[in-house]
Amino acid sequence: MANVGEEVSNKQVIFKDYVTGFPKESDMYVTTSTIKLKVPEGSNAVLLKNLYLSCDPVMRILMQPVVPSDFSSYTPGSPLNGYGVAKVLDSGHPDFKVGDLVWGANTRWEEYSLTTATERLKKIKHTDVPLSYYTGLLGMPGVTAYAGFHEVCSPKKGEYVFVSAASGAIGQLVGQFAKLFGCYVVGSAGSKEKVDLLKNKFGFDDAFNYNEEHDLDAALKRYFPEGIDIYFENVGGKMLDAVLLNMRTHGRVAVCGMISQYNLDQTEGVKNLMHLIFKRIHVTGFAFLDYQYLYPKLLDTVLPYIKEGKIVYVEDIAEGLESGPAALVGLFKGRNKGKQVVVVARE
Amino acid sequence: MANVGEEVSNKQVIFKDYVTGFPKESDMYVTTSTIKLKVPEGSNAVLLKNLYLSCDPVMRILMQPVVPSDFSSYTPGSPLNGYGVAKVLDSGHPDFKVGDLVWGANTRWEEYSLTTATERLKKIKHTDVPLSYYTGLLGMPGVTAYAGFHEVCSPKKGEYVFVSAASGAIGQLVGQFAKLFGCYVVGSAGSKEKVDLLKNKFGFDDAFNYNEEHDLDAALKRYFPEGIDIYFENVGGKMLDAVLLNMRTHGRVAVCGMISQYNLDQTEGVKNLMHLIFKRIHVTGFAFLDYQYLYPKLLDTVLPYIKEGKIVYVEDIAEGLESGPAALVGLFKGRNKGKQVVVVARE
Repeated sequence: MANVGEEVSNKQVIFKDYVTGFPKESDMYVTTSTIKLKVPEGSNAVLLKNLYLSCDPVMRILMQPVVPSDFSSYTPGSPLNGYGVAKVLDSGHPDFKVGDLVWGANTRWEEYSLTTATERLKKIKHTDVPLSYYTGLLGMPGVTAYAGFHEVCSPKKGEYVFVSAASGAIGQLVGQFAKLFGCYVVGSAGSKEKVDLLKNKFGFDDAFNYNEEHDLDAALKRYFPEGIDIYFENVGGKMLDAVLLNMRTHGRVAVCGMISQYNLDQTEGVKNLMHLIFKRIHVTGFAFLDYQYLYPKLLDTVLPYIKEGKIVYVEDIAEGLESGPAALVGLFKGRNKGKQVVVVARE
Repeated sequence: MANVGEEVSNKQVIFKDYVTGFPKESDMYVTTSTIKLKVPEGSNAVLLKNLYLSCDPVMRILMQPVVPSDFSSYTPGSPLNGYGVAKVLDSGHPDFKVGDLVWGANTRWEEYSLTTATERLKKIKHTDVPLSYYTGLLGMPGVTAYAGFHEVCSPKKGEYVFVSAASGAIGQLVGQFAKLFGCYVVGSAGSKEKVDLLKNKFGFDDAFNYNEEHDLDAALKRYFPEGIDIYFENVGGKMLDAVLLNMRTHGRVAVCGMISQYNLDQTEGVKNLMHLIFKRIHVTGFAFLDYQYLYPKLLDTVLPYIKEGKIVYVEDIAEGLESGPAALVGLFKGRNKGKQVVVVARE
């Protein structure tokens, strides 16, 4: 156990260089630097011990040299960063004290971080749940799923809901929120094991393995003979094209992610957009960024559900910072079963 | 002048057979049948003398054997139909009396029609404007432009608005509504002549000929260095792809039509949909059908504007029912300058 004031070694996962195509483990490397476990005199920084790191699809976007506005590329030679959970070891900031647990963005992939970006850290008040949940159910993916379903999708009881990448960090929650709300929910995922999770663990009404369907349109017609009212979009490309053919009049598409497209040099063209007019469909791209105000509501809703067993959350936990690159790469190959987390330390 | 009760010849434009690719004049033919100018005893039908017929892009969709729900294909061997303006020559319906002027859907492309589909006819109360306007500014395109801009686009003063197919029946109105509202408006069209109309007649801030731009993305960056807040979509395909690259955060796309795609066997794939997420864009497919309730508001707004010369409306008038097939075909080649109308009779 390191003590405050001590100079210690600090393992890091460094982003090597900009990526084209699928990210590989060799696009990152693990190195060790040193850090003094103390906030410099007069600074309002905090010194964090990083506990859990989140692997999120958006991280692929940040591996490119040119990124959309509101985003910033990773810096080659610097640690990766993303959402994470950390403990305050030392603080020069009046809002944070030693021992505080925090979650937020910009967590660097290293054992210890000195940071002044405290505006993006939120204090963790409820610790009677797994702390790793603050990278998922009780963090960015939780708000995204909650806002995406309840605000963006404008659901009505009894509606037909389709969720792609449904066993992922966000998809598993959208399905459960939709079931609790009274919708009929079908999910797609990439393996038999994940389909079993959807049906038996998360309580989806039905689920299918998209890898076993050559004709996604036919598959959707089988699972939604009446059509789809709400599509929670996590994958893009061919799946979106097939969904558009099966949407009902006044259907809604909440575009949360398009993971099938992030690693392609040429994204797939979506051909059935005329159905937006035929069925008068609303499509909304959205992000956590615009819905952070819902966080207290998420906690009020979800914490009791967790305790009552009405919501479950499946995580795929990679042990140790060294396992980070493989875990992140695995996310884009669909290797993760549930929310992909990397444990740096448990306390 | 035909008299009520008389049996007269009735020229018709018949839909020959389902169409693939661009419609041709030979997909229709003109024939002459006869009709008795009298509503049969006991029927609640009305007998109409058709005055103006509307050529609308959606008619291409109805020329296919398989159409989306809410639509019905044309019947080979029967007259085309669409929006139109007509005069009541005889009536068995309590709501319509001889001499009433009406506009509405399902107007058959023929000189006289006996119809029981009176629920889709609206009585024309204001006759101090050109009657043909009830196929455009004061009809379906008017409501569509009004609802599309004011309701679907949620505009704010000073926003940057882009309208494609901007000199068409709907586009020219969207641009004028947006200017009156206080937006900056640029339109695209397919010829120098149309671009001149946009700039000099309709008061767009700027306009360009898409046929002269090999790089639509570069063109949009030139006309919208700050990006686009609102895109009023009439064309689809490549233009939509270029627009997505140039949308601003929280931008809105009102999808009214995709005329560039209606005649293609394989629609163009749209590749930049990831920008929906990056910029958190709303895309809404919409149609007149859902906004008919705004008709009184349209009239209240637009009738004074017409009188004050604050709104102008350019029509491309084809004389005589025989000119209908060429006029309709021309719409898909961009031959029309303004709203394409066919005059069957002037009174």
